[in-house]
Amino acid sequence: MRKLLFTCAAVLAVCVATAQEEKLDDAIVQKIRAEGLNNSKVMDIVFYLTEVSGPRLNNSPGYLRAANWAKNELTKFGAEGAQLESWGEWGKGWELEKSYVAMTAPYYRPLIAFPKTWTSSTKGLKSAEVIILNAKDSIELLTYKGKLKGKLILLPRTDTLKPTYTADGSRRTEEELSKMAAYDPKSAPAPRGPGGPGGPRGGFGAAQALQARIREMAKAEGAVALLSTSPRGRDGTLFVQGGGAYIGSAPENFLDIMLAYEDYMSLQRLVTANIPVKVDVDVRSKFYTNDLKGYNVVAEIKGTDPALKDELVMLGGHLDSWHGSVGATDNAAGCAVMMEAIRILKALNIKPRRTIRIALWGGEEQGLHGSRNYVRNHFTDTTTRRFNAAGDKVAAYFNLDNGTGKIRGIYTQGNEGVKPIFAQWLKPFNDLGATTVTLQNTGGTDHLSFDGIGLAGFQFIQDEIEYNTRTHHTNMDSYDHLQADDLKQAATIIASFVYNAAQRDEKLPRKAPTAAGQGRQGF
Amino acid sequence: MRKLLFTCAAVLAVCVATAQEEKLDDAIVQKIRAEGLNNSKVMDIVFYLTEVSGPRLNNSPGYLRAANWAKNELTKFGAEGAQLESWGEWGKGWELEKSYVAMTAPYYRPLIAFPKTWTSSTKGLKSAEVIILNAKDSIELLTYKGKLKGKLILLPRTDTLKPTYTADGSRRTEEELSKMAAYDPKSAPAPRGPGGPGGPRGGFGAAQALQARIREMAKAEGAVALLSTSPRGRDGTLFVQGGGAYIGSAPENFLDIMLAYEDYMSLQRLVTANIPVKVDVDVRSKFYTNDLKGYNVVAEIKGTDPALKDELVMLGGHLDSWHGSVGATDNAAGCAVMMEAIRILKALNIKPRRTIRIALWGGEEQGLHGSRNYVRNHFTDTTTRRFNAAGDKVAAYFNLDNGTGKIRGIYTQGNEGVKPIFAQWLKPFNDLGATTVTLQNTGGTDHLSFDGIGLAGFQFIQDEIEYNTRTHHTNMDSYDHLQADDLKQAATIIASFVYNAAQRDEKLPRKAPTAAGQGRQGF
Repeated sequence: MRKLLFTCAAVLAVCVATAQEEKLDDAIVQKIRAEGLNNSKVMDIVFYLTEVSGPRLNNSPGYLRAANWAKNELTKFGAEGAQLESWGEWGKGWELEKSYVAMTAPYYRPLIAFPKTWTSSTKGLKSAEVIILNAKDSIELLTYKGKLKGKLILLPRTDTLKPTYTADGSRRTEEELSKMAAYDPKSAPAPRGPGGPGGPRGGFGAAQALQARIREMAKAEGAVALLSTSPRGRDGTLFVQGGGAYIGSAPENFLDIMLAYEDYMSLQRLVTANIPVKVDVDVRSKFYTNDLKGYNVVAEIKGTDPALKDELVMLGGHLDSWHGSVGATDNAAGCAVMMEAIRILKALNIKPRRTIRIALWGGEEQGLHGSRNYVRNHFTDTTTRRFNAAGDKVAAYFNLDNGTGKIRGIYTQGNEGVKPIFAQWLKPFNDLGATTVTLQNTGGTDHLSFDGIGLAGFQFIQDEIEYNTRTHHTNMDSYDHLQADDLKQAATIIASFVYNAAQRDEKLPRKAPTAAGQGRQGF
Repeated sequence: MRKLLFTCAAVLAVCVATAQEEKLDDAIVQKIRAEGLNNSKVMDIVFYLTEVSGPRLNNSPGYLRAANWAKNELTKFGAEGAQLESWGEWGKGWELEKSYVAMTAPYYRPLIAFPKTWTSSTKGLKSAEVIILNAKDSIELLTYKGKLKGKLILLPRTDTLKPTYTADGSRRTEEELSKMAAYDPKSAPAPRGPGGPGGPRGGFGAAQALQARIREMAKAEGAVALLSTSPRGRDGTLFVQGGGAYIGSAPENFLDIMLAYEDYMSLQRLVTANIPVKVDVDVRSKFYTNDLKGYNVVAEIKGTDPALKDELVMLGGHLDSWHGSVGATDNAAGCAVMMEAIRILKALNIKPRRTIRIALWGGEEQGLHGSRNYVRNHFTDTTTRRFNAAGDKVAAYFNLDNGTGKIRGIYTQGNEGVKPIFAQWLKPFNDLGATTVTLQNTGGTDHLSFDGIGLAGFQFIQDEIEYNTRTHHTNMDSYDHLQADDLKQAATIIASFVYNAAQRDEKLPRKAPTAAGQGRQGF
């Protein structure tokens, strides 16, 4: 342990020394800035990725429309070798073809509703009574045997809506950013382990098992659908994701319809008051099983320095989305910013020393599948679970996937060596609000696939805007919730970072294998 | 003018003297408080007025369900003479029987949509192309002649959605309340007159005339519907009201569908980008024309003092709502609070000196029709446009119609004489946040009908909560947006105010005819 710490300190000393010698090409940075801020195409790009393509659930027609459009557009920008690259077997596509959900008794009211992905159809319009299934375990569940046919099943909720006395939208404060900049992993609390039996994980597991039993029984008895909700969504916003397995051999999942919280609770109150409630449901969805492989979109700007052109600077974001809207902030925003960065660099006819490769990942929402498999296929020594010789050529990977907010800085994932380098790279953009380099980790997206095998993978710090309140995995993740000026800023900064990483004499320093945060997200 | 001012000052002197002698029955007030805060039925009442009855558009089946339920419930509470009292001819009922609106090209997406009231049906499912009608005047409109058949018409918008950096919900601050308490009409700015030709009103009139021409042409050519929106609504919330005339002889208005802002703008962007957009629409509504009369619900607790029992203390709120949801905060809340106040007084077996009469008004949303006509039928000398001899028996009218928020005080409509009286009446409820008596006017609801003929009509100051951001005239004016504790507080305070007004030796002082604010809202 001591020896390792010593090695680490030695590496850091080297890094700091290197960082002090950072040479930036101010003229290029200013050109990037002018192109990115004044001639931006990012909103055009994001329009095609979102509203023109539609929802981009992985392997759905919408995903493939967006992927093919991105491939063609990257080619138009002048990138080379643009293609949909398969990472291997993944699963089924699914698309909503009709969804009509309305209460018809005690009176008529259309409901705000969205079926979960990979769930089945009603096979025409069904007029169904709503019942409450109140079973705390599988013994109690048995009392509902024989009572579910033709019914819509609602599981009782006891949570309540509170008025929102804090704003949906926010930007990071200077105080918050200062704390992030000052973060020291050595004095930070250790990450929490998974809950043991009987802890939260145990309870959650039991609830999940009961849910599975309910679905089985509902399907077997011929219920029409299960209804779901969450008070996280409100005012017409609903959070909606997956409704079960999507692998090729999985059977169709039982229909599970997410309702707006207010609508769900209204049904529950009426049924509880013994007022018969009927709901018309007509859901038609289609499963796509012809091609079960998963795809990323990749394209390159070839490196020109004979000594460095085989090395890679990568940038990316995930192209797939959930289906409740068009995945504007999660994550067409990130993809459009990365495509715009490529456009900027090509518009300026940049001839980078290293090769610059963009990757728009598939299957992120189900567990970073596109990036993890890409990194496994290309860069991983499966014995050591660290990067292989090809991986060693990766100078850096930059990711953007925290919504529409502008860049306020960058997470280094505990990589102390890059801290002073990034601080210098951000300098020309300090006036645009991008100032902070933090040793903090951030998770939940595709830079982890690189970080997990010891490569230099980074995600930017962004302003939150309405990400967690309104757009992330909701039916409101739509174009109007995008902030054009923020996306222009982000594309400009990322184009500059990518350029700097491509021109630098050395690859960006990597963390030592034991440095904080590294390796936790391995395969 | 000087003489009038002198009279006014004399009246005020008398009022202040009277106020100093206010006698409150503390024991009764404490009983009211205990019953209202600890045994409240207000949430049960509001449940039946909202979710059990449905939307309460005036003269719709939902309105009549709620009105009849209220009549019966008031009778159960022990009120006498509960009835639906007609105020005379009004217009047609209307109810939505089906509404399905979904984009089907370039891909499928259900839209959040609500037809406006009193607009017509599609007569089955129509699959229609969306077109943008961009005409700034009736000359340009002619260029669309022959192009509207079978189309959905969208009028271009240039507004944009901004993130919400202020909270949807709010409560009044002490600073705001202090300003209201200190308000002096003599030093306040004069009310704005209507805009002249060419001003905002002139411009608005021209736009309205063009809108009417567009509707005529759309109807004549056989368009499917007009689409509307407003960025006031967002995140799935939409503001939706009336779509035209409702009098018995009016023809059906052309179908006008309110879309969620994000959905509307998405259609506009796609069409603008020359991407063909098709939308399936299936709207069925029903007009009710058998009984065109308008109805209020009234009931009484008879007065017991031989000298005062012919005098009236009235309390009320409007029972009708718009149709996008169940009108929970506008204004089932106010009605439930008033009914609960009656319940409290009957539960305590109060024998008031004056008669207490509750009125739940119809037709408020279309212009205070229920209360204005009630006041005209019962209390108005149509020559002087002031109260008649029967009106002179009205000691006070109390109204509640600003949402679900608790009472923070009361608007006196410039009536200086009641200011010290109300201050004393509020004292036992200061600890519940109700402290403020303001000389300010407030408008927009049924106390104006009383105030307009010189009677003492008042509306309470309430916390805003999410009234203007989320619930007022929206599809989110639903039960979950009600605040139970606030409604209990309001019912308790109003029961006490009504009791005090019924027991007081004198009727509440009225404003002199020229006092600020009075008479502006006459018929």
